[in-house]
Amino acid sequence: MSKPLRLGLAGLGTVGSSLFRLIDEEADLIASRAGCPIVVSGVSARNRLRNRGIDLGDVAWFDDPVALANDPSVDVFVELMGGEGGAAEASVRAALSAGKPVVTANKALLAKHGNELAELAEDNDAVLAFEAAVAGGIPIIKTLRESLAGNTISRVYGILNGTCNYILTRMERENLPFETCLAEAQRLGYAEADPTFDVEGFDTAHKLAILTSLAFGTKIDASSIYVEGIREITTADIEAADELGYRIKLLGVARRTETGIEQRVHPTMVPKSSAVARTDDVLNAVAVDGSLVGEIVLVGPGAGGNATASAVAGDIVDVARGLKLATFGRPAKMLAPYVQSDMHAHEGGYYVRLTVVDRPGAFASIAARMAEKGISLESIVQRRRKPSAEAPATPTPDDPQPVILMTYATTEDQIRAALDEIEKDGHIAAAPRLIRIEEL
Amino acid sequence: MSKPLRLGLAGLGTVGSSLFRLIDEEADLIASRAGCPIVVSGVSARNRLRNRGIDLGDVAWFDDPVALANDPSVDVFVELMGGEGGAAEASVRAALSAGKPVVTANKALLAKHGNELAELAEDNDAVLAFEAAVAGGIPIIKTLRESLAGNTISRVYGILNGTCNYILTRMERENLPFETCLAEAQRLGYAEADPTFDVEGFDTAHKLAILTSLAFGTKIDASSIYVEGIREITTADIEAADELGYRIKLLGVARRTETGIEQRVHPTMVPKSSAVARTDDVLNAVAVDGSLVGEIVLVGPGAGGNATASAVAGDIVDVARGLKLATFGRPAKMLAPYVQSDMHAHEGGYYVRLTVVDRPGAFASIAARMAEKGISLESIVQRRRKPSAEAPATPTPDDPQPVILMTYATTEDQIRAALDEIEKDGHIAAAPRLIRIEEL
Repeated sequence: MSKPLRLGLAGLGTVGSSLFRLIDEEADLIASRAGCPIVVSGVSARNRLRNRGIDLGDVAWFDDPVALANDPSVDVFVELMGGEGGAAEASVRAALSAGKPVVTANKALLAKHGNELAELAEDNDAVLAFEAAVAGGIPIIKTLRESLAGNTISRVYGILNGTCNYILTRMERENLPFETCLAEAQRLGYAEADPTFDVEGFDTAHKLAILTSLAFGTKIDASSIYVEGIREITTADIEAADELGYRIKLLGVARRTETGIEQRVHPTMVPKSSAVARTDDVLNAVAVDGSLVGEIVLVGPGAGGNATASAVAGDIVDVARGLKLATFGRPAKMLAPYVQSDMHAHEGGYYVRLTVVDRPGAFASIAARMAEKGISLESIVQRRRKPSAEAPATPTPDDPQPVILMTYATTEDQIRAALDEIEKDGHIAAAPRLIRIEEL
Repeated sequence: MSKPLRLGLAGLGTVGSSLFRLIDEEADLIASRAGCPIVVSGVSARNRLRNRGIDLGDVAWFDDPVALANDPSVDVFVELMGGEGGAAEASVRAALSAGKPVVTANKALLAKHGNELAELAEDNDAVLAFEAAVAGGIPIIKTLRESLAGNTISRVYGILNGTCNYILTRMERENLPFETCLAEAQRLGYAEADPTFDVEGFDTAHKLAILTSLAFGTKIDASSIYVEGIREITTADIEAADELGYRIKLLGVARRTETGIEQRVHPTMVPKSSAVARTDDVLNAVAVDGSLVGEIVLVGPGAGGNATASAVAGDIVDVARGLKLATFGRPAKMLAPYVQSDMHAHEGGYYVRLTVVDRPGAFASIAARMAEKGISLESIVQRRRKPSAEAPATPTPDDPQPVILMTYATTEDQIRAALDEIEKDGHIAAAPRLIRIEEL
């Protein structure tokens, strides 16, 4: 067996600590798979004295992760600090510039600087591995980059954020409003004190940007993703979806269209029979439509220290085994510029919930507005308002009533135009709620 | 871009023809991913003149696949002939002996000769790749061998045979007997004229043997797998399962136990909420329980020309990219001998269907026999016989009636012993039906 591979480990949070423990406790298992012993030779973290439940022993401590990345005792730099710039970016750049392989779980860094880092890696003949950056323990990066190399991909989509999926699952199961479920997620450690990044869809967007590049051979472009979070979803929407045979999930979807690659993150109506509809709680699911394989779906834990450490360990063993691939599956200079498909041109079915006053006239007027814009309605359902989590009081006959429309495939432009007209007609008492339907 | 990688393709059936077409039609895509052009330089098949819908052009023809494997124009040998010995084995041995990488979809060959072939590959510093051998387009080989390298695996299981899954799905959906659904599967090309290999579970066993080696680092041993097929499953069993919250699937299960590795293939009661329960028709699903990752589940097409060619193409691109791994994830000489866990010691819950005569006395006697053997019953359900697919006549009150028992976890030995006693007591009119329950 050859000489040990020495890791410089930057970041000792949940994932870093799990990885450190794994390498300590499962040394034989990992060595047998890697073909050489793997050791941590140096670590860096913000606070040296914090109790992490791990014994750092005589592992060298570095206050500065850049110094760790540059240290001659480090063969592979493992970046688990997080953050789209700062120390994470500086230390990853340092390691790659020195020709050292880098393993990272940092989706924000890749979403923002992935193109430059991939070029830097190639210029220095270094590996940049990031299985842990998307969907935690699910091997979607390897699947797209290696297993499906013979396929032209037409779509990749999935549930990529466990926090949102947990909140939506609780809302549905227990008929509880968003805010209550968010608080519960925070109490259980599934959501941050400031949950914006998760619940507004930005975390999903970062992960989607990475998948898009791998699937379509394009440069990463997270900034142009259409992003809509789950804050506005109500139990009334979830209930209406249920009655219509759907569930509501926050999906990231990247799809090849005639005008470019569509990238979007939004609450989505998915048929109950689909695999993503049945992915609950903090689980993630990623589906890929390939020209040869048809559809494959991968389901598993998308976050958590151990599941993420599993992905990091897989990358480290790949490095030890000598696997050397272009960062996004193709040489960085061969990645095509990302051509954004216009969200206005997005085609699909829509769920629309209107709060309608003056019903008799309103129905005809709404249907006429839809027809004017060439939109066919699959169903129009008037739902008598029941006491709900958000509006527990008993309704009176004069209250505005919800009306649910399901459209056949139309464009974002057409539906927006129709809703503008309907609002102007004054038949509705609140802004329309619109949820896109995805054919699965 | 470097010089072309030249394939010798042996076998031009569904998969071989799909692969040939892919390499012809998607040359640019594959070259961009592989880092070099990939071409077919020679082919071999049984019948040169058969119309396969592909244009072999000026590709060299070899009547003898061994000659193809040995030909200097061949860099990589792709074996898609099938068969556990014969020409497939001889040509794979020839290619490996010459130090050439081999890509194969041949599970029977690996199940029977995998250990020797892995050693031969290593002795000649050659790659033996076989993603297509298990679960078609689902990347389970790569996932076990690479992505989960940091995990200790406790169990791997799945639906590995599309023919059986199709038959069971049809039986359930349409309340049709096994034979009708088998005939339908044959008509649609999902089952062979002689379906023994699929419906008796042997195909699943071959695939399971490969997964076991990868998951547990043991030598392949397909001969000691406990195998039971789906021929005896009736719509009455499926209906009873449904009422109890289960579905019946043919699973292959490999599990680490205190006495060794358990490998078994049998019809299994799986909870309706589980991912495998929801995998229908010809789809496959494979689940892995890992120490870090928890459970991940991969679902997709397990057979078919294109899906299998997708996996073969992934392996070919891996070879082109220089990926060189030990066949079963660890050096062949380091694989542990397979220590068989005794099937008699298998622990789990059981579904038992008895056809009971003389009911009043029988119930007490059956319950007493179970108790004597230390078996706790979760439920005991007397089901009035309804007209079914297998027994369409209207029953009379004197007919024997089915009684369903669900046990808590017990051992195979205990349940078999109890059923022997019950048979001797003469209260039952037919051999008991026993289906194992898997906790998922």
